[in-house]
Amino acid sequence: MPARLIDSFGTTDAFAELFSDSAVIDAMLRFEIALARSQARLGMIPQSAADAIGQVSSLDAGTMARDARESATLAIPFVKALKAQVGGAAGFVHYGATSQDLLDTTLVLLLRGAREVLANDHARLTQALRELSERHAGTITLARTLLQPALPTTFGYKAAGWFGAVVRSWRRVSAAFDEALVLQFGGAVGTLAAYGDHGLDLAAALAGELQLALPAAPWHAHRDRLASLVSQCGVYAGCLAKVARDIALLMQPEIGEVSERGGGSSAMPHKRNPAGSVVTLAAAAQVPGLVASFLSAMPQEQERAAGGWQAEWPVVACVVQSTGSALAALTSVFDGLTVDAARMRANLDRAAGAIGQLDDLERSEQYLGAAEALRRRILEDTE
Amino acid sequence: MPARLIDSFGTTDAFAELFSDSAVIDAMLRFEIALARSQARLGMIPQSAADAIGQVSSLDAGTMARDARESATLAIPFVKALKAQVGGAAGFVHYGATSQDLLDTTLVLLLRGAREVLANDHARLTQALRELSERHAGTITLARTLLQPALPTTFGYKAAGWFGAVVRSWRRVSAAFDEALVLQFGGAVGTLAAYGDHGLDLAAALAGELQLALPAAPWHAHRDRLASLVSQCGVYAGCLAKVARDIALLMQPEIGEVSERGGGSSAMPHKRNPAGSVVTLAAAAQVPGLVASFLSAMPQEQERAAGGWQAEWPVVACVVQSTGSALAALTSVFDGLTVDAARMRANLDRAAGAIGQLDDLERSEQYLGAAEALRRRILEDTE
Amino acid sequence: MPARLIDSFGTTDAFAELFSDSAVIDAMLRFEIALARSQARLGMIPQSAADAIGQVSSLDAGTMARDARESATLAIPFVKALKAQVGGAAGFVHYGATSQDLLDTTLVLLLRGAREVLANDHARLTQALRELSERHAGTITLARTLLQPALPTTFGYKAAGWFGAVVRSWRRVSAAFDEALVLQFGGAVGTLAAYGDHGLDLAAALAGELQLALPAAPWHAHRDRLASLVSQCGVYAGCLAKVARDIALLMQPEIGEVSERGGGSSAMPHKRNPAGSVVTLAAAAQVPGLVASFLSAMPQEQERAAGGWQAEWPVVACVVQSTGSALAALTSVFDGLTVDAARMRANLDRAAGAIGQLDDLERSEQYLGAAEALRRRILEDTE
Amino acid sequence: MPARLIDSFGTTDAFAELFSDSAVIDAMLRFEIALARSQARLGMIPQSAADAIGQVSSLDAGTMARDARESATLAIPFVKALKAQVGGAAGFVHYGATSQDLLDTTLVLLLRGAREVLANDHARLTQALRELSERHAGTITLARTLLQPALPTTFGYKAAGWFGAVVRSWRRVSAAFDEALVLQFGGAVGTLAAYGDHGLDLAAALAGELQLALPAAPWHAHRDRLASLVSQCGVYAGCLAKVARDIALLMQPEIGEVSERGGGSSAMPHKRNPAGSVVTLAAAAQVPGLVASFLSAMPQEQERAAGGWQAEWPVVACVVQSTGSALAALTSVFDGLTVDAARMRANLDRAAGAIGQLDDLERSEQYLGAAEALRRRILEDTE
Repeated sequence: MPARLIDSFGTTDAFAELFSDSAVIDAMLRFEIALARSQARLGMIPQSAADAIGQVSSLDAGTMARDARESATLAIPFVKALKAQVGGAAGFVHYGATSQDLLDTTLVLLLRGAREVLANDHARLTQALRELSERHAGTITLARTLLQPALPTTFGYKAAGWFGAVVRSWRRVSAAFDEALVLQFGGAVGTLAAYGDHGLDLAAALAGELQLALPAAPWHAHRDRLASLVSQCGVYAGCLAKVARDIALLMQPEIGEVSERGGGSSAMPHKRNPAGSVVTLAAAAQVPGLVASFLSAMPQEQERAAGGWQAEWPVVACVVQSTGSALAALTSVFDGLTVDAARMRANLDRAAGAIGQLDDLERSEQYLGAAEALRRRILEDTE
Repeated sequence: MPARLIDSFGTTDAFAELFSDSAVIDAMLRFEIALARSQARLGMIPQSAADAIGQVSSLDAGTMARDARESATLAIPFVKALKAQVGGAAGFVHYGATSQDLLDTTLVLLLRGAREVLANDHARLTQALRELSERHAGTITLARTLLQPALPTTFGYKAAGWFGAVVRSWRRVSAAFDEALVLQFGGAVGTLAAYGDHGLDLAAALAGELQLALPAAPWHAHRDRLASLVSQCGVYAGCLAKVARDIALLMQPEIGEVSERGGGSSAMPHKRNPAGSVVTLAAAAQVPGLVASFLSAMPQEQERAAGGWQAEWPVVACVVQSTGSALAALTSVFDGLTVDAARMRANLDRAAGAIGQLDDLERSEQYLGAAEALRRRILEDTE
Repeated sequence: MPARLIDSFGTTDAFAELFSDSAVIDAMLRFEIALARSQARLGMIPQSAADAIGQVSSLDAGTMARDARESATLAIPFVKALKAQVGGAAGFVHYGATSQDLLDTTLVLLLRGAREVLANDHARLTQALRELSERHAGTITLARTLLQPALPTTFGYKAAGWFGAVVRSWRRVSAAFDEALVLQFGGAVGTLAAYGDHGLDLAAALAGELQLALPAAPWHAHRDRLASLVSQCGVYAGCLAKVARDIALLMQPEIGEVSERGGGSSAMPHKRNPAGSVVTLAAAAQVPGLVASFLSAMPQEQERAAGGWQAEWPVVACVVQSTGSALAALTSVFDGLTVDAARMRANLDRAAGAIGQLDDLERSEQYLGAAEALRRRILEDTE
Repeated sequence: MPARLIDSFGTTDAFAELFSDSAVIDAMLRFEIALARSQARLGMIPQSAADAIGQVSSLDAGTMARDARESATLAIPFVKALKAQVGGAAGFVHYGATSQDLLDTTLVLLLRGAREVLANDHARLTQALRELSERHAGTITLARTLLQPALPTTFGYKAAGWFGAVVRSWRRVSAAFDEALVLQFGGAVGTLAAYGDHGLDLAAALAGELQLALPAAPWHAHRDRLASLVSQCGVYAGCLAKVARDIALLMQPEIGEVSERGGGSSAMPHKRNPAGSVVTLAAAAQVPGLVASFLSAMPQEQERAAGGWQAEWPVVACVVQSTGSALAALTSVFDGLTVDAARMRANLDRAAGAIGQLDDLERSEQYLGAAEALRRRILEDTE
């Protein structure tokens, strides 16, 4: 179990597990076992060696993290530990592969797991938003611009706006996952030269074993697919944060139009805080800087970077976990959200009175037909 | 002409013009004229008013930038200046529209222009990379990992790697442009209420006038499309910077495998600097932080933000211009790049000698067949 | 006049002028003239040459920005243009200096000008905040945590909190200016070798001419002083934005405790927007990403960077201008801020009623003595 | 022990321990115990309660991280767990304090521990750099600008440049620690109202117990001190990365002027990688984006933020750990660095030959006196 207290809002139990030491080692093992199995099938190593490697079901992380610093790669202590477990098959472990084949594919496998969790929560959130929008299709409320009351809208249209942004952004995340979840396999310098004429066959076999797509070529120093994924997570997290900010603002008692089930206060028992929105905002706030870190590291030297690549793992893991944490928190907000339509109406009336423009307000309220049409367009556009 | 000396590498003449004061005013005018024309066609305003508005071909920026600060929106001084030009039609200017309709659509129109310039340069760059890769399909060179000599590869495969990343990233930029280049039109709070039952008809007519796609709904506070565009520019710029870094490293005289036509030095006339690569790197280095700025501004309050939206224009304009500047600089690098195949061979031999592993090197050189197959896969994948 | 419309909130007239093309050329000229004058005094070049160079009072920016891209340095087209103006003294222009001596010192001179403008506005802002705090030392108001009403405080203490953060942060900015405003002068590779035994004498003379401090050594590839300045501007801008956010929130009509003179709306004439706060937030939002850009560029290669250094000018200029724009906007907010003490009282009473904890509230109100003591501590601490 | 494999280069054993769950709980306990003790001394709570609280020497993190998400604060599950351990004294735990008093002071206590580790490694690094500079005061080497050979310098001067930047930056970090390591204590809304007339006495007593300075006032929503610390760590890390980049470039075999003891390769046993430099670069690359995250979160709402504050812990912890990891890695580089003065000489001669400017080179070599003077100025300036 990772250190969690220093970052309570940056991950969830599920995500912490997905990027835990044991999950990392498990994914690394999967790569090496699949590699050995593929190589045995192609006659590159003895089947007995592949069998021996395939027997290893876990390794102790031990001092691997520390040892990784000595060689600037986790692959070296890992392969060493693995070799120590397989007796005579040691010489066939990681055969012809390079550190980055192992580590990038490991990251891809971890991301595949994360995608599932994200997809599940996303489905829950959008379902909740769609229902909220439908339920409040006719709930008149005050639109606010620059934090000032403006004119009437419907709460259903407002919820549809949230829905549309979240759905569009997830589509991009999903497409970016499709592109990024590909095998990394190129050998020392990406030429597959160690495998003579059989490099591409082996790559295809390995991809098959791991059920990963095979890209046109290895991508050791070309990080655009991951960069796109990380960036689209940033866009998605930004959309989640926008919803959370709206909720937190609407939940100000002076406005009081919605209310989270909320959390308490250690000093003021009477308080009801927008806890889920706050966690969403706190988690999402991590992401933009991390996206910049990833993009800044893209100019990676020649066939393998001296620093930029090695900076990626924690960035990607944090982006995904923070996004997932924000998503989980926001989903929980909508599990228990109370909408106060009467208060919305009262706020609208008060605003109309204050600004002496009842006519305008009434007219626009009367013409909320377009808002309803737009609301339906959003829900249909993104089904 | 904008202030250019403080940012000589952040834009080009073409991009500076595209985002100049006159270009901004021209795009703003196009919106208002198209709006009036559409409204006249739908009988919302007199045709004569639309004609009067349509006569205005330019406005003086004057103190608009300063005045914009008073109201936190450029739309107000602009609309005021426009009204002053149209006599009796003043009451029909900007009718029913909101600041953000005008300003967001203006940005979209500017971006449409920028896309063309980017696309042209991108086509030149990828053509050059493709040719370079073909020409050097058989040029053996030393691959380097962590800045250390590793094993042989071909320069053609290396160029194909650059090509593939740039092409994939451009596809994403292009798809993001497709999504982002849509009309913004919703009226005061995005409901089109000012237009009664004809809001959607007007929106469609306006989109047609401006030859922009009509999105499902206005997107005043939902910035995901722009965020995706900005982010994908960041990924693309990162790929350009990676190529530039490689060139600058290969051009070190101690390596000397390629050479830019290059630039001079004010203190050392004998020097030949990787000027194009340096400009590429300098321009691209601007982008990641700007992407973070855009993403950080996404949690925009309710129906229109108090700060986040207003922060976007310079960020988007800088991202696009910096990306364009990096692209132009890198394209010029390949216009005059010299490749020294003999030096590549010599460096390879020297590395082989130094590490006493001639056998390994020879073997992998002999098996560069896979590299050639991978090279072709990349070129075919991305045609 | 620079392109301003695309970035109306990112600078002010004063700052735009400070970083305009003519200001840049003027500062560059000051360096070259001071260099020539110092060299003449030390007998390194003829006095007549220094006189000829000293006659040049302006140069046309012309195509310098474009030409700078060819050589990756603005110094080359500038020096060329200057030489063309001085006839026979051409051979003595920029003698022994390097591009970066000229360009870094130019930036320092520009920053010295910017510091003055910032300092003036800072003085106005803190004066306003101090007065506000004193005036409302006894104005009871509702403190809010997580956007929820909490317990009483005084508006004077709240204003003191703003004051304290702004004052502390400016002290750090000011100290960072002290460190950063130093001469850059090292010749081609920072050794002053071109000047034989007289390099340090020349450096001291040049520093004297320009009234800049002389650092221990040139800092061509060591950017920590500028990095610290840029970062501290980021902290300062963050403090300004915090105040602006508070104002914008307190100005929500549902709360209505303070009010900016404010700006209008193009679609809703009845609205009064927190325009100054919005501009403050929009301007300040630019800065964090730019700080990251600067820091990311710090690993500059050997004696002069290939990309990182060349990325700095626009970053520094934008940071300073955005900070200055935020400061000017916030200062204007306090020029016209209305404080509604009655509304504060009413909100407090309503909150007390709503939460059924009148006792608690009354008790804490009664004990606001500590708040007053803390308020005075802040004002005294930072005088 | 935290999850380390996903972030092997982002922390060290020492730092991982400093921010571990048990370290966090220990610091939280220290706060609560010191608070109780101070309150007992002032007669606010019974001494027996303080004694009971003081008995608690550890708490199980259990599900605290998860529970923290419910209330958006770790303080609530922690205080609950603590109360469960102290029987009848439960009512006196955390008396009158607020979540943020506990959590901010906890962070400060953790940072105090981190500062010591950083200071120790910094001392080792600067000692190594000073010695290196002295040892090579007379070692002539080739300066390089824009990655191109320029003119001679000395390796001692180069090392002094590294030394100067690192020392200056540490001074700023150290000053920022001095400012940031202060007590947070204000009660629910920062007024100390719960303690009647004794709030400031209690604050002073608590500061004394914890051996922390007492600031002028609580700083719940004013984060400039931490922001300055985080930013200065960013500057410092940037300086470390610059040194690492130089080493990695000089260690290219084609240049071969220095050599790390280095690390191996999983695919190429012959390789010797700049492992320490790579880890330094990878760790330092995390920091700029995190600095932006911190600065972006500074506009914190009213008396306690809804999101921005809650985002800080992982950012601060990552900045400090990444900086510490970079520092540890770079320190180890200099423990085993080999300098090849003969190769430096050979590279210089070859460069001179290639550019046909032996005269220039010889002259500048002859005049390296200024470089030596500058070198000494740096070492003296920063003692």
